[in-house]
Amino acid sequence: MNVAFIQFAPRFGEVRRNLDTAERLALEKAADADLIVLPELFSTGYLFLSRSEAFDLSEPFPGGPTGDSLARIASRLDAAVVGGMAERAGEKVYNSAALVRPDGSFEIYRKSHLFLDEKDYFDRSDGPIRAVDAAGSRIGMMICFDWYFPEVCRVLTVQGARVICHPANLVLPHAPEAMRTRSLENRVFTITANRSGADRRGGRELSFIGMSQVTAPDGTVLTRAPEEGEHVAVVEIDPRAAEDKRITAKNNLLEDRRPELYGDLL
Amino acid sequence: MNVAFIQFAPRFGEVRRNLDTAERLALEKAADADLIVLPELFSTGYLFLSRSEAFDLSEPFPGGPTGDSLARIASRLDAAVVGGMAERAGEKVYNSAALVRPDGSFEIYRKSHLFLDEKDYFDRSDGPIRAVDAAGSRIGMMICFDWYFPEVCRVLTVQGARVICHPANLVLPHAPEAMRTRSLENRVFTITANRSGADRRGGRELSFIGMSQVTAPDGTVLTRAPEEGEHVAVVEIDPRAAEDKRITAKNNLLEDRRPELYGDLL
Repeated sequence: MNVAFIQFAPRFGEVRRNLDTAERLALEKAADADLIVLPELFSTGYLFLSRSEAFDLSEPFPGGPTGDSLARIASRLDAAVVGGMAERAGEKVYNSAALVRPDGSFEIYRKSHLFLDEKDYFDRSDGPIRAVDAAGSRIGMMICFDWYFPEVCRVLTVQGARVICHPANLVLPHAPEAMRTRSLENRVFTITANRSGADRRGGRELSFIGMSQVTAPDGTVLTRAPEEGEHVAVVEIDPRAAEDKRITAKNNLLEDRRPELYGDLL
Repeated sequence: MNVAFIQFAPRFGEVRRNLDTAERLALEKAADADLIVLPELFSTGYLFLSRSEAFDLSEPFPGGPTGDSLARIASRLDAAVVGGMAERAGEKVYNSAALVRPDGSFEIYRKSHLFLDEKDYFDRSDGPIRAVDAAGSRIGMMICFDWYFPEVCRVLTVQGARVICHPANLVLPHAPEAMRTRSLENRVFTITANRSGADRRGGRELSFIGMSQVTAPDGTVLTRAPEEGEHVAVVEIDPRAAEDKRITAKNNLLEDRRPELYGDLL
């Protein structure tokens, strides 16, 4: 199974241009991928200044330009494609990750842990956190700051996820190393697709750290992009490695958990 | 508040000698500490070859030589002292961490996740995982391989632990870096007291990685020992930094958790 991330610098509000960039990079550089991950909010950019801005740039899924673009990539490349978007649902707008399969079927995940001003611009998700079948394997989705909460990867792992797709717009420096621990403690693959560049708007500036990466169940980094620029990596993985939860001859990650000791506190 | 780890290489089965080493190092090099952490099974060594060996070397707590030794250090230095021991309780023997306060009062934690052959030599703990008051702060205990399970630090954090004491006999290379993530994702201090050296018995050899360390709530390593040899570090920390669970102006680690989304899966 070939998995890919696409790292680039979306331009704020230029949805058509961002979708074109994503499609071009996918078709030119990830043609042999079975699973492709794009950054969080890759079609809109990140630095909204108000809820109404986020609402105005949001789209239904499926049925909007971003969903259509993901579906085109999925169909053209016969791959599952995951990307972050501002998802409109009635009067609500979510920071979501959309997954589209080659046959056009789809899944959506709404970010469980909103970061900073996202709390003002996006609605709070009411879940679920749920592993899904795609690309011949079992896939989990989480978004950016969800990495801070080990519960997210754990819940996905307990549901059988072998590959965790992680669209991100990371600004803090910790996640790439922490994702190695997420991978190791769950014995799963992770694909972090982070954006690069900066958003500058309304006298504010946010810079993103790039460093998109793929990690393996033993915590190794299979590939990591530089901090800046456009980068597409395609990595061959064997998801069966994430099926095997043995840590030693006598330790199995899932069997060794002690939920009865963790109790109501988690 | 001054916290310390004591790293050394216990000799297998030489309980009196190991206790003397620990007491000497504590009195000579950790005299100004308020909280001292010794390695897992520091009084017996690690590489048991049978359950009966572990049973024969185990002691009641309090009331055995190891408990007495911890109590002497605690009383002499006016410090809380945590150390790992083979704890006998009736016909059972646990891989435990014992904590003794200067006034002789005590706590015990029994390892929740046994590693490899420990499953044959030690009894399975029936808990609890519980934060306790000591050294003027709120303290958690976990032992070695417990690091692999993010639930342990999380449960302790939810109970208010600010400093997590982590006696260890680490043989795998991942824990020192992973403990930075434990620290960060819970915004707590951690003190890993690992042993150095090797146990060689019955044609087998196990080498331990040293690298005892203290980490801060922002994930930084405040001090880390070399891989080999005896090392005592005393580090001044402000446990109030672990009381503050703010990640950003709008994100609080504990308030941002979404247990209703994690559901029964944790």
